[in-house]
Amino acid sequence: MEQGLRGGGSRPAEPGPCLSSQCGADQAASVSLLSAAGAEPGSRTLAVAAVLPAGGCGERMGVPTPKQFCPVLERPLISYTLQAMERACWIKDIIVVVTGENMEAMENIIKKYKHKRISLVEAGVTRHRSIFNGLKALADNQPNSRLSKPEVVIIHDAVRPFFEEDILLKVVTAAKEHGAAGAVRPLVSTVISPSADGCLDHSLERARHRASEMPQAFLFDVIYEAYQQCSDYDLEFGTECLQLALKYCHIKAKLVEGSPDLWKVTYKRDLYAAESIIKERISQEICIVMDTKENKEHISHLLEEVLKTELNVKEPDFQETQKLMSMLEESNFSILYSIVVVSVHFLDFKFASPSQKMESLMCIREFAKKMKKRKVLLYGLIINYSQDEQKLQESLRQGAIIIAALIKERNSALIGQLLVA
Amino acid sequence: MEQGLRGGGSRPAEPGPCLSSQCGADQAASVSLLSAAGAEPGSRTLAVAAVLPAGGCGERMGVPTPKQFCPVLERPLISYTLQAMERACWIKDIIVVVTGENMEAMENIIKKYKHKRISLVEAGVTRHRSIFNGLKALADNQPNSRLSKPEVVIIHDAVRPFFEEDILLKVVTAAKEHGAAGAVRPLVSTVISPSADGCLDHSLERARHRASEMPQAFLFDVIYEAYQQCSDYDLEFGTECLQLALKYCHIKAKLVEGSPDLWKVTYKRDLYAAESIIKERISQEICIVMDTKENKEHISHLLEEVLKTELNVKEPDFQETQKLMSMLEESNFSILYSIVVVSVHFLDFKFASPSQKMESLMCIREFAKKMKKRKVLLYGLIINYSQDEQKLQESLRQGAIIIAALIKERNSALIGQLLVA
Repeated sequence: MEQGLRGGGSRPAEPGPCLSSQCGADQAASVSLLSAAGAEPGSRTLAVAAVLPAGGCGERMGVPTPKQFCPVLERPLISYTLQAMERACWIKDIIVVVTGENMEAMENIIKKYKHKRISLVEAGVTRHRSIFNGLKALADNQPNSRLSKPEVVIIHDAVRPFFEEDILLKVVTAAKEHGAAGAVRPLVSTVISPSADGCLDHSLERARHRASEMPQAFLFDVIYEAYQQCSDYDLEFGTECLQLALKYCHIKAKLVEGSPDLWKVTYKRDLYAAESIIKERISQEICIVMDTKENKEHISHLLEEVLKTELNVKEPDFQETQKLMSMLEESNFSILYSIVVVSVHFLDFKFASPSQKMESLMCIREFAKKMKKRKVLLYGLIINYSQDEQKLQESLRQGAIIIAALIKERNSALIGQLLVA
Repeated sequence: MEQGLRGGGSRPAEPGPCLSSQCGADQAASVSLLSAAGAEPGSRTLAVAAVLPAGGCGERMGVPTPKQFCPVLERPLISYTLQAMERACWIKDIIVVVTGENMEAMENIIKKYKHKRISLVEAGVTRHRSIFNGLKALADNQPNSRLSKPEVVIIHDAVRPFFEEDILLKVVTAAKEHGAAGAVRPLVSTVISPSADGCLDHSLERARHRASEMPQAFLFDVIYEAYQQCSDYDLEFGTECLQLALKYCHIKAKLVEGSPDLWKVTYKRDLYAAESIIKERISQEICIVMDTKENKEHISHLLEEVLKTELNVKEPDFQETQKLMSMLEESNFSILYSIVVVSVHFLDFKFASPSQKMESLMCIREFAKKMKKRKVLLYGLIINYSQDEQKLQESLRQGAIIIAALIKERNSALIGQLLVA
């Protein structure tokens, strides 16, 4: 009489964890792409590292916590960025630059969410000084360092968690060829130049300018040279690494058109947007565990169908998610995202009141409390298994709407509740 | 044995509906502010109109519906912008410029959400042509028009719903003095100029530039003259009204620093952010209707206290919201936002199982379906009214968490459910 339906979070569409079986293929792909771009013949692996400045204080956010440490679905924003960066297995080292006071917090994040290939470096007082510190850690001449100098270095922001491996490959390939490269986006607002008295001096033609976004990539020697040469004024007030490469090494960076995903979490509203995007992505990951008894096959299939429509799941790969669910039981897969489990029960309301069923199911409340500690959100649902086809359809539709809402909202306040469809 | 608790949406902190009793005071305030800024002595009311171009096709959003018509909490985005604009009672006319194919949809929105002082004008093929059409409708020489030429005209985007009356006053005041004025914001990304081969030509110093946002305001004669003079190239490819006033009327617009609220809904993530912001704002509006029977006063007070903490309500004005709830029963106040009603029942689980109570309360499901059509979201909640003080406290806390979640999430999939705390 019982059906289990589980949803959510085990393997987000992107960014996702780096599975070791995928690494080989990815690495080969990256090298081949790099070669195709004419950078280097053959299959020699390019040594790539990444520097993530994360020393900002988040003043624009209007909250006391620096934005890179703000929780999104209970996990710090920077952990999502690291997870996305780790997916590119061909990046050898990831240098995160944090202030001394946040060093311990950052170490705990790396430990808790099992991030790999990360080294921490202490931030400077400005963004450029922080990046310079990160580059110094990668330079050849550092004694006692396990890090080695890469050929190409990626610079990315800790507060841009949404990017594809594709854009990393593009900027790295372009940097290998041109010396420097960066992602750009069209301007959303017209940019104007004010005069000293706070009036309009002139406005810039929007189509002729671009917003400089991240990631950027450089031949290590180019950007390191630029930082070594640059003035204190640059280090203090500059905002653009591409400009340093231009000014001090005469390297004209290749500009790569990026997707809208590359946006930087700057204001509180961006945290809201990030949360909604992540919720939507992980709600695409559902696993339906069905009781295959003959007489229930029909209804199980119906529920599956309406649920797919409700969740707008395009290509559900149930075999794949089934496998992941087995993995889940052995591993700690709920480390990165909480998992939604909806326990669905069918009952013909004509012969039994839902409240009778509820009585015996009240234990779900205590169980849900225990599960929550393991980051599993458990809900109960009773569906009217009516003999009347129309009533059954209506109840299934209502059940699917409720399940979809539970999966999408991931509301921990409602765990252990027994809902009725 | 029954307590009613109602939350949500009757009077959003901002933007809120314009109550006729407030209009007089607002108007006086605006005139006095305008005078204080040295624009005009005395109390003569400045004639102000607004033009809202809403002819865009939303290509950047990646959805078929133009972004101004995308639903946010089931209401089209543009309706929020109109609501915010209407709050400034001193704006005489609001001209919305829409494409011919959206004209009927726009008329329906105005009717459905009872917007006032709106005139519709057909859009041109570009933003500048649309604004020009809006201005033409306001110009003196239009036959058969109920509109009259204003002294100052505000230009604002349909897709910027979050702004305060304060910024409207500031740009109008500055426009009266300088001829033109516009809101600006610091740049989030560095702006760069590409060369013809897609490489970096130069980057702009971020601190010396600003993003030009909305609202803007102009002496009507200035901006109308500028549009009449300007070239087809400007009308086709230009993006900046302030630039037209500069180029054709030699008016250097005053730049007014705006708040982060002024952002433009451009991408899908911005719709997510808008929804979260509106949910947060309207969840601050709660009304607790208490049964004041002697023996329940204590518990009612306790629930109120924990709920205030949970919802982070800073200064709950219950007298005010009580009044609004009475108004609600007569008026159609749920037109703008759905209203959340949580019906709370106390039951000592030691003497009665929640499932017994549930039986008699199952009717809530049918009632909730009816209420939903009137945009009222009804939920039931049973709280364990235990004699054990510790258990009672725990149950109250859990109840408050559930109520807060219902109010914050406004999840219509869960209406009619009877939850247990």
